[in-house]
Amino acid sequence: MSLIEKLKLPDDIKKLSDTELAILAKDIRQLILDTVISNGGHLASNLGVVELTLALYKVFDFPKDKLIFDVGHQCYTHKILSGRLDKFSSLRKKDGLSGFPKREESPYDSFNTGHSSSALSVACGFIRAKKLSSENFEIVSVIGDGSLTGGLIFEALNDSGNIGEKQIIILNDNSMSISKNVGAMSNYLLRLHNSNFYNSLKGSVSKTFSGMKFGKIDAVKVLENIKKRVKYAVQGGLPFDQFNLKYFGPIDGHNFQELIKVLEMAKKEKNSVIIHVVTKKGRGYLPAEINPDKYHGISASKCNYKKDCKEENLNETFSEVFGKTLTEMAEKNDKIVAVTAAMSEGTGLTSFQNKFPERFFDVGIAEAHAVTMSAAMSLYGYKPYFAVYSSFLQRGFDEVLLDVCMQNLPVTFCIDRSGIVGEDGETHQGIFDLSYLMMMPNLTVCAPKDTRELKEILKFSENFNAPLAIRYPKGCSINYENSSKIEYSKWEKLTSNSNIYLLAVGAKMNEIALNASKILKEKKILTTVVNCRFVKPFDLELLKSLKGKYVFTFEDNVINGGFGANISLYINSHNINCKVHNFAFPDKFISHASVSQIYEANNLTSENIASEIEKFVNNK
Amino acid sequence: MSLIEKLKLPDDIKKLSDTELAILAKDIRQLILDTVISNGGHLASNLGVVELTLALYKVFDFPKDKLIFDVGHQCYTHKILSGRLDKFSSLRKKDGLSGFPKREESPYDSFNTGHSSSALSVACGFIRAKKLSSENFEIVSVIGDGSLTGGLIFEALNDSGNIGEKQIIILNDNSMSISKNVGAMSNYLLRLHNSNFYNSLKGSVSKTFSGMKFGKIDAVKVLENIKKRVKYAVQGGLPFDQFNLKYFGPIDGHNFQELIKVLEMAKKEKNSVIIHVVTKKGRGYLPAEINPDKYHGISASKCNYKKDCKEENLNETFSEVFGKTLTEMAEKNDKIVAVTAAMSEGTGLTSFQNKFPERFFDVGIAEAHAVTMSAAMSLYGYKPYFAVYSSFLQRGFDEVLLDVCMQNLPVTFCIDRSGIVGEDGETHQGIFDLSYLMMMPNLTVCAPKDTRELKEILKFSENFNAPLAIRYPKGCSINYENSSKIEYSKWEKLTSNSNIYLLAVGAKMNEIALNASKILKEKKILTTVVNCRFVKPFDLELLKSLKGKYVFTFEDNVINGGFGANISLYINSHNINCKVHNFAFPDKFISHASVSQIYEANNLTSENIASEIEKFVNNK
Repeated sequence: MSLIEKLKLPDDIKKLSDTELAILAKDIRQLILDTVISNGGHLASNLGVVELTLALYKVFDFPKDKLIFDVGHQCYTHKILSGRLDKFSSLRKKDGLSGFPKREESPYDSFNTGHSSSALSVACGFIRAKKLSSENFEIVSVIGDGSLTGGLIFEALNDSGNIGEKQIIILNDNSMSISKNVGAMSNYLLRLHNSNFYNSLKGSVSKTFSGMKFGKIDAVKVLENIKKRVKYAVQGGLPFDQFNLKYFGPIDGHNFQELIKVLEMAKKEKNSVIIHVVTKKGRGYLPAEINPDKYHGISASKCNYKKDCKEENLNETFSEVFGKTLTEMAEKNDKIVAVTAAMSEGTGLTSFQNKFPERFFDVGIAEAHAVTMSAAMSLYGYKPYFAVYSSFLQRGFDEVLLDVCMQNLPVTFCIDRSGIVGEDGETHQGIFDLSYLMMMPNLTVCAPKDTRELKEILKFSENFNAPLAIRYPKGCSINYENSSKIEYSKWEKLTSNSNIYLLAVGAKMNEIALNASKILKEKKILTTVVNCRFVKPFDLELLKSLKGKYVFTFEDNVINGGFGANISLYINSHNINCKVHNFAFPDKFISHASVSQIYEANNLTSENIASEIEKFVNNK
Repeated sequence: MSLIEKLKLPDDIKKLSDTELAILAKDIRQLILDTVISNGGHLASNLGVVELTLALYKVFDFPKDKLIFDVGHQCYTHKILSGRLDKFSSLRKKDGLSGFPKREESPYDSFNTGHSSSALSVACGFIRAKKLSSENFEIVSVIGDGSLTGGLIFEALNDSGNIGEKQIIILNDNSMSISKNVGAMSNYLLRLHNSNFYNSLKGSVSKTFSGMKFGKIDAVKVLENIKKRVKYAVQGGLPFDQFNLKYFGPIDGHNFQELIKVLEMAKKEKNSVIIHVVTKKGRGYLPAEINPDKYHGISASKCNYKKDCKEENLNETFSEVFGKTLTEMAEKNDKIVAVTAAMSEGTGLTSFQNKFPERFFDVGIAEAHAVTMSAAMSLYGYKPYFAVYSSFLQRGFDEVLLDVCMQNLPVTFCIDRSGIVGEDGETHQGIFDLSYLMMMPNLTVCAPKDTRELKEILKFSENFNAPLAIRYPKGCSINYENSSKIEYSKWEKLTSNSNIYLLAVGAKMNEIALNASKILKEKKILTTVVNCRFVKPFDLELLKSLKGKYVFTFEDNVINGGFGANISLYINSHNINCKVHNFAFPDKFISHASVSQIYEANNLTSENIASEIEKFVNNK
């Protein structure tokens, strides 16, 4: 029986010696590693905060004290410690533990997170509630250095300076956000690394890391290398001072003694403090330490969803095809520029970045800024492609609407992870983009049926002189043999004419519609599957030809305000007079589970749909 | 003939002496004052930057050099100087000059703005385009101190630190954003005011202001009072340093010599600079100087849209009723808290603020933070009401969706300036909220038909334990004699039963539908007007009763994804089998004009609508 199994968590943690804590950390690290390799999840970020989380539990009294994890992709140790050890094997599985903090699971999860940079806004709310109710508890936020570029953090820091009540902010500085961290804030942290305070600490850091070798990597050398990147020394005047925060650090985030000492100091402080903790992303698992970007998010079982595709004899992922195609286009067109908000690898832009570093812009986690900056570049003849995950583009909603669409500027949004992403759950499902994009005037919205069509639409985009959104899902798709030429607003019939039309948006929905069509064909019900590759504007000629037909719409988006709603609107308003039924996700948030489980749970399998269509057509 | 009329603008500005510039400034100030009193507009902010704008035109070569106004509500002098003097009388009128920068009007307007804090993102885009194309021009942004709290500014500052190319940022510090400026950034600026640099400048400031008395107000005293608020002295380490910006200032923003000197220095600089200019909002017009909040935005002709209401024998504005009702509710319920993003006066919260300062939170221009902070407070039993303009809530889209709706938290959004706002134009029309709110799971959306119903819905909200959005327009409404009791999701029939149903959302649309109904009644066509006070969820019982009827929907929102689209969806999906036609604004941005002109231009008058309904009903 390992130590972790023997403990009554979290109460017993407070009694453990440093040696026992170290053993526990090793156990937890192994448990996380095993679970993530089996279930998928965020590996590097979770391996980096094991000691930090243990130290937090040693010093504070959760859930009376409040612990807020920014983003939340570093909460596994916290979940293990807060009474969820026995459920940990269900991580990211249907009806199992979420990979992010979730209040429904435990009172130890103080706020549901998933998107970056919200922790300090949450803290402000807690502080104000605490002040009004005269309660007494500590508020501790853990924020990765990558989140510091998000404007929301700054809005909250500014406001918290206004409140003047105590909070504790832990800056988890692993010198590595999801992609390489960028910008002034990053440079600033590097300056801190080189400060005297840091140097005086170096001895203890070296001692801790000394002898720890992971293959050919020497931990002390890694830290020395960080120093080499440093350009400026700190000369007083930390910006944190401006926000009335007392600064402690940098602290070795893998050294229990240091961590516990500083957390206890922070607890005793009357005023707000920021603790700068330096950790190593992926610590304890060599491949993740060497390449934390790659091990940031891992898909279930295979450690790599691309491998999934390969094993199923599928082709490249949408992200890969996007990256490759844009790089090819950029070779011939020097006006093409690529923009990412800290998602270079995830969106497939690494090769572009390497080949055209001067035309590649990673603005950090700052989606709103990425949008407006792209809009401005487009005014000077440049052709910006902003590659972004569907759910993260939500952060730039106002900017897409006003800075791009209102001025009708030729910015192309390459929206990855549209539709259901599966195990990352509610905050990451890309099921709102059709609704929030279709309402924007001047915006053309496309959804390719496969990766080849993505390539064709990207080529189409090159000469398209207006705002364009191209949405495509995580992973790969079946590939179609033939494809009609891309023409603005034109749809494509995938099966021959009939009385029953299946209007499908995007790769996943075309696949489902086609399969349903096959099932129905066996029952002698012929259907016309239409690939609605232009989601907006509609193919009006085709739509008008639907008078008197049965029309079924298919979209991997919520039902409200999406493709089906706008098709219904059009058909009614133009008196096209046909029966319409919509297949879409319901007006709900969708929890984590595998993609196929989510489709099943929502009755969106080809079989269910075929049977519904059959009933619908037979009954009337 | 005044000097302003004699000049060939902008070329001749460069030749003017300081004395002539001062005469020109006086002329311009008078022109702005006269025009705004007649046409409405932003008075205080524009009066504050007359000298600054003149100095910019004296030193830089626009439009070759790029001038970016943040928000844009301070661009009148710029418009006058850049060849639009003869059109200035058309300011904010239909087909006339916009009150904000607009590229369609002039090459001197480098980017269309309207919402806060976007200038530096625009500058980043320009800088990158300039760098890639190896062109040579200066990039100058003018940003008010109030905009500094917006996260977008920070995202851009961080990114621009990364680019390392020159830009010039002018911080127009009038110590007064739309409401009183708040937060750490504001305190920081106050510290600057007290710095040695500032003190050494004080002599010249005093000299400039000396003898200038506006009624009982002595300008030098005003500046002294600012100093009294100062708590800390600057001790080096400006945060701007962190972003590789060289700091100049503070500069007296009404002193041509100082301004021109510093702008010329900035022009010669190789590196990025920030110039801290201190101006007086409303300068030159005493009422606006004393009460710049009140004179921030002025409605046409009457200087006060409230007065419009009074003269038309209407009642209080929605903002006033909201503020008054919430204050009354808060007297009995100490859990109620009010949140604003720098819009205390505009949203009607001043009395709440005065009565319950400890339960009133102005977070500055930081809508996203306001949303998440409110969500967190609601977890501790508090009942947050976030009062916000419809178009500004767009900045908190992701936070409303994930931080409030996903967790189903009882935050109430009191959405003012919904629908058409008129003269402020594209960026301020509240015509997207129904679309972007109806797609959010768990969110209930209401729209009262009049101010009395707003009061009732607010009372209803007190015991409603889930996310709630209440949208209402600018100004006031007709008031109805009777009103049925507010019941969750229930609609209200305003006229007796018939075969033709007019489903109307909100004050303006109920009024139009009722008037259309009256016109039709004269033609013996009876219609049932339904006040759809719950926009989401629908009154399903009533909707199901519409089988075989004619249904017309009415909303002051874009057509895509809005009320009509979702009604069409529901009616089709549930086989209710009735004719539906939707009245809404088209899939377009809507320029400035008076509210009634905008309704007319979009065929949304009662007369037009009655005639369309008549045709529709007679034809089929």
